[in-house]
Amino acid sequence: MISIGSKKDQSKLKRFNCEVITSEEMAAHTDVDLVVIAISGIAGLKPTLAAIRAKKSIALATKEVLVSAGSIVTAEAKKRGLRIMPIDSEPSAIWQCLQGEAETVRRLILTASGGPFRNLSTKKLDAVTPEQALAHPTWNMGPKVTIDSATLMNKGFEAIELSWLFDMPIKDIDVVIHPQSIIHSMVEFVDGSVKAQLSIPDMRFPIQYAIFYPERISNEKLPHIDFLNIKSGSTKNALTFEKPDTDRFPCLGLAFEASRRGGTYPAVLSAADEVAVDRFLKGEIRFTDIAKIISKALDGHRGISKPSLKEILAADAWAREKAAQ
Amino acid sequence: MISIGSKKDQSKLKRFNCEVITSEEMAAHTDVDLVVIAISGIAGLKPTLAAIRAKKSIALATKEVLVSAGSIVTAEAKKRGLRIMPIDSEPSAIWQCLQGEAETVRRLILTASGGPFRNLSTKKLDAVTPEQALAHPTWNMGPKVTIDSATLMNKGFEAIELSWLFDMPIKDIDVVIHPQSIIHSMVEFVDGSVKAQLSIPDMRFPIQYAIFYPERISNEKLPHIDFLNIKSGSTKNALTFEKPDTDRFPCLGLAFEASRRGGTYPAVLSAADEVAVDRFLKGEIRFTDIAKIISKALDGHRGISKPSLKEILAADAWAREKAAQ
Repeated sequence: MISIGSKKDQSKLKRFNCEVITSEEMAAHTDVDLVVIAISGIAGLKPTLAAIRAKKSIALATKEVLVSAGSIVTAEAKKRGLRIMPIDSEPSAIWQCLQGEAETVRRLILTASGGPFRNLSTKKLDAVTPEQALAHPTWNMGPKVTIDSATLMNKGFEAIELSWLFDMPIKDIDVVIHPQSIIHSMVEFVDGSVKAQLSIPDMRFPIQYAIFYPERISNEKLPHIDFLNIKSGSTKNALTFEKPDTDRFPCLGLAFEASRRGGTYPAVLSAADEVAVDRFLKGEIRFTDIAKIISKALDGHRGISKPSLKEILAADAWAREKAAQ
Repeated sequence: MISIGSKKDQSKLKRFNCEVITSEEMAAHTDVDLVVIAISGIAGLKPTLAAIRAKKSIALATKEVLVSAGSIVTAEAKKRGLRIMPIDSEPSAIWQCLQGEAETVRRLILTASGGPFRNLSTKKLDAVTPEQALAHPTWNMGPKVTIDSATLMNKGFEAIELSWLFDMPIKDIDVVIHPQSIIHSMVEFVDGSVKAQLSIPDMRFPIQYAIFYPERISNEKLPHIDFLNIKSGSTKNALTFEKPDTDRFPCLGLAFEASRRGGTYPAVLSAADEVAVDRFLKGEIRFTDIAKIISKALDGHRGISKPSLKEILAADAWAREKAAQ
């Protein structure tokens, strides 16, 4: 079987000589045990909801699903006693750190590589080309998430994702720049003790963890950390930390602001970002315009609190139009 | 009630006008729920065993108890389904990292501050005075454990302690120097993922964790880690790692060697160290003689595998005589 976004594209797949169904049908299929959602952007929302309604276990890589519709997705999953398992280094790190712990969390500490432009001035950021932005120093990812990493919007999305996955208010989620990307995130508990999850940056870690959860499976193909040989720039064997700069990287602040406002604002954030990133990749706008476009969309939006799915999708559509102008 | 080491010292405590019992009687007393063993050296062994035989929960700060008689103490505790809870930053860190995890551990990574003489040459180590050695940069401790920290014997003891507490072969325990003492130890799992426990160095963390286990209790008096303000010498906000040097600090290697040989060897290690440290503090021997005395005792010892308690105490007594020569 092959699953596609829409049945109208079926004809294109005729040559594969196999059954073609929609991603929603696939997600709810009786032969499916675990649904891995790894589509870029809001396109992941409908199959996620279809899978939850069919009581499937879900491994979620598409953070935009929770950013846009976290309230609905988590409520639907909770109703059916389903766990949404993250497939991404940072939320997986938090999830791993919370194993065996009661709900005595004081704050989540979300680490960020800082992206390839961590040390650039705003003036230099103005001149960044799509080619430069697509060359991420640590992770090998698709174009959308690579640009989101460079603007730090990806980190903002992750903060919102964490707030839904682990039921934490956004004010209790801190972002810290950690250029080595060895510590994938941390949890501070009420007693002041902190747990961190570490590995060499490699997406196979969180993927394997989610697929085999709650078991850990031996995998000699995955790299080990050598604490006496950590690549950390000029400093030897060091894990370093820096404050994120929301003046140079306003997308991070916008994400936190959208989360604080709640309701349909995060959906607007996500949709406007999708359009703005696409426009940047096409060469229509500058790197620094991405945040400006999103900011305008958030400012122009009349938010709805406790929105329905329909209202979220309407906010998404509105933001796309706004961001395309 | 007051507990003392031996009834023959009772008369000294008459002025306190309260019941005086031995530490063994105290450990097994019906009014006692949790026995905290925090006596320096082998003196902690008898009350530990008395507490275990009376089915008391045990919080253990005295690592020499497990170094000398780990086989007997852990077997007695296991027989009664009792947990020995460590009160020390490093084993507590491992214990915390193992919460909610199955037995899928690849190795334990034991961190060490490196002590005050981390960067001294062997020649300079020769000239170290007791006063210099008693000024530990990070932890405020008693004289015996402070000297053990300076020789790295303390780290060797901790490795042996971990091997008993968490049933790990000594070959799967690695020591790494981490001068900031923020990461208190780490666990690497079979999938290559690593968990670390971090806090500001403060003994109240592991003490509170053991006393309230399995609950974490909010304690605003304990300091928080500010990852943007870590004191790390010349490097800013960095957690750094170094290889321990067993040429300059042979005690660490001796501890691993004693553990590999097993049987009565770790008891000899611990007893010889107790005497040698005492002699150093009295000004009888040089700092670098501590390791030499212990090495001689280990070399001269005829080990007994699977020793009884009596045989362990005999090895201890033999090593004390040997080390005093």
